Amino acid sequence: MESYEKLVTELKTLAKYGSALSLLSWDEEVNLPARAHSYRGEVNALLSSDFHNRLTKQETYDLVAKLSEPGIFSGLSDDQKTVVRETKRDLDMARKLPTEFVEKMSLLTTKAFGVWVEARKKQDFALFAPILEEMLAMKKREAELLGYKTSPYDALLDEFEPGMTTGSVDAVFKPLGQELSKLIASVKSEPAVIAASNYPKAAQEVLSDRIARQLGYDMDAGRIDVSPHPFTISFHTTDVRVTTRYDETDFWVSLGSTIHEVGHGLYEQGLPEEHFGTPLGEAVSLGIHESQSRSWENFVGRSRAFANYLHPVLTELFPGISYSPEQLYRWLNRVRPNLIRVESDEVTYNMHIILRYELEKALIEGDLNVADLPAAWNEKVKKYLGLDVPNDALGVLQDVHWSHGSIGYFPTYTLGNLYAAQFFNAAKKALPDMEKDFAAGNFSGFLGWLRENIHSQGRRYTSAELVKKVTGEELNAKYLLDHLREKVALAN
Amino acid sequence: MESYEKLVTELKTLAKYGSALSLLSWDEEVNLPARAHSYRGEVNALLSSDFHNRLTKQETYDLVAKLSEPGIFSGLSDDQKTVVRETKRDLDMARKLPTEFVEKMSLLTTKAFGVWVEARKKQDFALFAPILEEMLAMKKREAELLGYKTSPYDALLDEFEPGMTTGSVDAVFKPLGQELSKLIASVKSEPAVIAASNYPKAAQEVLSDRIARQLGYDMDAGRIDVSPHPFTISFHTTDVRVTTRYDETDFWVSLGSTIHEVGHGLYEQGLPEEHFGTPLGEAVSLGIHESQSRSWENFVGRSRAFANYLHPVLTELFPGISYSPEQLYRWLNRVRPNLIRVESDEVTYNMHIILRYELEKALIEGDLNVADLPAAWNEKVKKYLGLDVPNDALGVLQDVHWSHGSIGYFPTYTLGNLYAAQFFNAAKKALPDMEKDFAAGNFSGFLGWLRENIHSQGRRYTSAELVKKVTGEELNAKYLLDHLREKVALAN
Repeated sequence: MESYEKLVTELKTLAKYGSALSLLSWDEEVNLPARAHSYRGEVNALLSSDFHNRLTKQETYDLVAKLSEPGIFSGLSDDQKTVVRETKRDLDMARKLPTEFVEKMSLLTTKAFGVWVEARKKQDFALFAPILEEMLAMKKREAELLGYKTSPYDALLDEFEPGMTTGSVDAVFKPLGQELSKLIASVKSEPAVIAASNYPKAAQEVLSDRIARQLGYDMDAGRIDVSPHPFTISFHTTDVRVTTRYDETDFWVSLGSTIHEVGHGLYEQGLPEEHFGTPLGEAVSLGIHESQSRSWENFVGRSRAFANYLHPVLTELFPGISYSPEQLYRWLNRVRPNLIRVESDEVTYNMHIILRYELEKALIEGDLNVADLPAAWNEKVKKYLGLDVPNDALGVLQDVHWSHGSIGYFPTYTLGNLYAAQFFNAAKKALPDMEKDFAAGNFSGFLGWLRENIHSQGRRYTSAELVKKVTGEELNAKYLLDHLREKVALAN
Repeated sequence: MESYEKLVTELKTLAKYGSALSLLSWDEEVNLPARAHSYRGEVNALLSSDFHNRLTKQETYDLVAKLSEPGIFSGLSDDQKTVVRETKRDLDMARKLPTEFVEKMSLLTTKAFGVWVEARKKQDFALFAPILEEMLAMKKREAELLGYKTSPYDALLDEFEPGMTTGSVDAVFKPLGQELSKLIASVKSEPAVIAASNYPKAAQEVLSDRIARQLGYDMDAGRIDVSPHPFTISFHTTDVRVTTRYDETDFWVSLGSTIHEVGHGLYEQGLPEEHFGTPLGEAVSLGIHESQSRSWENFVGRSRAFANYLHPVLTELFPGISYSPEQLYRWLNRVRPNLIRVESDEVTYNMHIILRYELEKALIEGDLNVADLPAAWNEKVKKYLGLDVPNDALGVLQDVHWSHGSIGYFPTYTLGNLYAAQFFNAAKKALPDMEKDFAAGNFSGFLGWLRENIHSQGRRYTSAELVKKVTGEELNAKYLLDHLREKVALAN
């Protein structure tokens, strides 16, 4: 069908511009010299608005509209239907945002990021407050432009997790928070420790590289670099890059983040290359993406089987270590509330997310003023984690997200944990020997299961449909809670 | 003046697209995963042809044409006149090349580069011959499109060294070649050696970083990465990147190339930032660019004063070394013909260029067939350097340039040496204590002189005008020959 082919050609061209934009972002986080940020912001803004203009142009929309007409749509193959339906969703959303708005947002995020870095360094929220006000005004405007039924926060959430609403998040997060509070209160013992050791960066690089390959990450279609905030980015199925960061006193800082990011990377490398640029070659949502990173980090990487596999590798690379595989396993699963989200254990981590979700929703819905944010933050940290926040850098200024304009993003982390637990449970049923394989350093069974059930599907299903299809039931917090109860039992 | 402001705005926008394109190139050389080359080639081709379309669009040309009308031009300031005159030159040239041609060339160079890598690996010119034929046909077509008076090679040369012709190159290269042949024949002794030592890569990285900063390279507006073929690229005055490569048996492989590339980088960092994107913020030519890298590499880096400064730094970083500063100096200046251009000494290096110049001119002018190229190469290597070429990898396949479509580029290397010698002589007259300063690790006098006389000028003058203005005379090979005679005297 000629119009369908035309649409796919245009989508593949758009994807090439998207790759160039992504390279600018990757480079900004990994390489950019200090003095180059201002100019780079201008380049980003120019290319972002060009991209938006091209994405939203009338000819493409007309093609999609024509292909969406019932008489034509019904004649399409299943694959074609997915491409048309999802592209229509993307374009409907994108066309609601004027190019000036996109360009202004691009400039604002570059500026806000710089202000946030400075404010965090000086531990002073007041420096960040004015630009956060500006950002919130922009995000409220964005919500109005996109439209919503109940809460403006719904519109923002939908950008990251299509179909998810404040109502559906509340329905999962409220009972989850209550159960987690009980669980956290039940933690008795001091967290497990292992003997201090020194982990030279060069050996940690070898470790990251070796484990990444062992998990199945294709280093000929990817690379591992260093950035202060580890992330994954894909330019194409053959070029998916992850980053990590190194701490010579704790090898898990790099290895844990490498495994996490490699989880994202495996998803991107596993999307069908022939569909690259179309929704069939794209990830379902941020929540499903996060389910992949969390599966590998927490369900594989923190398992007893993995500790047994990892221990001899560590002993080879760091001859000084003196702890046993079991001690390693217990240390990887220690539970203790931490002020910093990214340093938190699996159990308390989700309270960090619930806290951020409640606060950003209140900011967007107008129930909380920016000036009152630090106090509200500190109060919730006390209530949910039992900790006092000594300064803003260890509190409200710790995360980059708000400076990036990513509001509605945090919930996808806990959704990812929930999906991961439910998927992992299903994989275990399908592959009874899976954990025995992990202990032997063989991860291809689990990867194959993810490839078949999740990666190869692209955006064929929404996250809710995918969970149902893969696990046979709706999203159910039971699986994550069972998993976390095991962790608390181990810690006690 | 409104049309002038409009022109500058458009040029600065074009520069931003140029920066994105340059980032793609840098990333391709420094980071690209093995499997990603094919897709990256498509992205490059798309963005290159977009850039060419925008560069050559009628509205911009109309602005320039209007500003070039005598009545209007005469009312412009000197700076404005430079911008209009040079932009007109650029656009006249660019508009002669159809977008399809540019896109085809972009795809061809990506493909040819891959073939060249493979052919060199297999030491088999026959594998490269068909695509080189294709490349030559394209370059002949390019010469026809651009136009020329005498030789099609003139058109290609003019792209890299504006104003230079086959005639003017011959007038310099022929007598230079004759003098150099005599000089090379007069080399008597065995080349100086220094005791073998091991230079760990980590310490060499410290060395490169320290020396680059000491020479004046701003690391907050640049960075040093690794690539198989070291190069310099500028995205903006605040983001100028160099690369190097490491050999643990020879620190000069990295340090020499770092100093060379930093010489290029200092030029780019020294261009007037406020004029970025316009000809006033651009380098004069490749030859003048090369004069900067060669000044720092050969006239500073291989001087006795620099060896005296460098020796204690080496002793600190590589405690095992046992040679004296004078031995270091003599080793840095040893003379011995080498099959490989980039490993050649200063004296024999220029014979490599003359050889390539003669061959590529003959190929373009139709006096040499691709099939006869390896034999012609080997014959000239025997005649000019007295060496037998054992295989194509050490002969005709050693350089990347032809696969990149860079024909007419090689002469700029020797032009750079000639300019460097003449500039350095002028600088020494202006700064009599310059070499004493080098010995003390102080390079700011020489850098300041280059900043004032060359870097800050942008494209205000052609290379011929600049040489005249800065040194008081036309290009004169005497200065390079005097310098090389000293090197031979030292070696004998």
